[in-house]
Amino acid sequence: MSYQYTRPLAILIEELAKLPGIGPKTAQRLALYILNISKEEANILARSIVNAKEKIKKCRICYNLTDQDVCEICQDNARQRDVLCVVETVRDLMAVEKTGGYKGLYHVLQGAISPLDGIEPEHLTIEQLISRLKTEGIKEVILTTNPNIEGEVTAAYIARLIRPFNIKTTRIAYGVPIGGDLEFADEVTLTQALLGRQVFKNEK
Amino acid sequence: MSYQYTRPLAILIEELAKLPGIGPKTAQRLALYILNISKEEANILARSIVNAKEKIKKCRICYNLTDQDVCEICQDNARQRDVLCVVETVRDLMAVEKTGGYKGLYHVLQGAISPLDGIEPEHLTIEQLISRLKTEGIKEVILTTNPNIEGEVTAAYIARLIRPFNIKTTRIAYGVPIGGDLEFADEVTLTQALLGRQVFKNEK
Repeated sequence: MSYQYTRPLAILIEELAKLPGIGPKTAQRLALYILNISKEEANILARSIVNAKEKIKKCRICYNLTDQDVCEICQDNARQRDVLCVVETVRDLMAVEKTGGYKGLYHVLQGAISPLDGIEPEHLTIEQLISRLKTEGIKEVILTTNPNIEGEVTAAYIARLIRPFNIKTTRIAYGVPIGGDLEFADEVTLTQALLGRQVFKNEK
Repeated sequence: MSYQYTRPLAILIEELAKLPGIGPKTAQRLALYILNISKEEANILARSIVNAKEKIKKCRICYNLTDQDVCEICQDNARQRDVLCVVETVRDLMAVEKTGGYKGLYHVLQGAISPLDGIEPEHLTIEQLISRLKTEGIKEVILTTNPNIEGEVTAAYIARLIRPFNIKTTRIAYGVPIGGDLEFADEVTLTQALLGRQVFKNEK
């Protein structure tokens, strides 16, 4: 028999435990923490949830998350507007964005083609991507889908659709991760790293 | 330069990252999860926070958490009413309660004596504990404070106050944890385990 939490606490723990990666013990710890902060702080937390949920929608152009009609990235005129980085999810967009090295635009597919999971091309924003290519004067599409089966299939599918447009289509490089150890790289990755070898550049 | 989240998302991530053990990456993952669940589910989560915060207070008798004047444990007449388990926090109460082996009442001190942290006996519910001993007909007080310096000091302090009442006062046993390995037990624990040795009981 385990401890019977008082009802509002039991409900809070149950709700927190629904979050990904939050087990019952962590949920209990978070709930007790929330009971310890000020009422005002708890209200701010609750309001930030409701508010985010109410205000955030998808960018009409690239399907990034935004509280406006068109997202901050699509609106940013300082960005290079003829390069398009095609990603599966907003999380992937955030990952690319965090590198700080990419200054072009994005297109978020909202997933990858995966017939086994019932995800067909028409469930993604591929059609909208093609429309953009027709109107936006894009010069390069960088296919930044995941390096797994679904991501590769999706990249290949999109590459085939882009071919008639005569737009440069690239795929992110496969290779060994920086800081990694060669002996721990899997054979497929190492093979790809060898095939994708580049001319060594001497430092100036 | 890192990614600029749209404002309501940035606020949500910031608020989630204030929770203990939740770093920026986990906060981002949780925030994106919350944006993916239904509006109704997000509202339930937000409401459970506000609701718990509004309704939960401390039990008038034992300082456990409850949404009533007196907590479920203190109200439970099936429990043994002459044994009192004295714990530092509600989390400790929950830990004891989860063993399922204790059927008496509790007293939650709300911390342990720690002059370095500015926590003196008068900041805890020690006075209220003594009042209970005067009126409730308690026959045994089990000092279940933590086996660290603050917990030991607090247990010793309370034991001294209880002495005039002629109530049986016990301390949880020190020893090697079940399932542990003797060679990994620290010397202090092992010394205590030897000192606290018990007559071996043959199974019947």
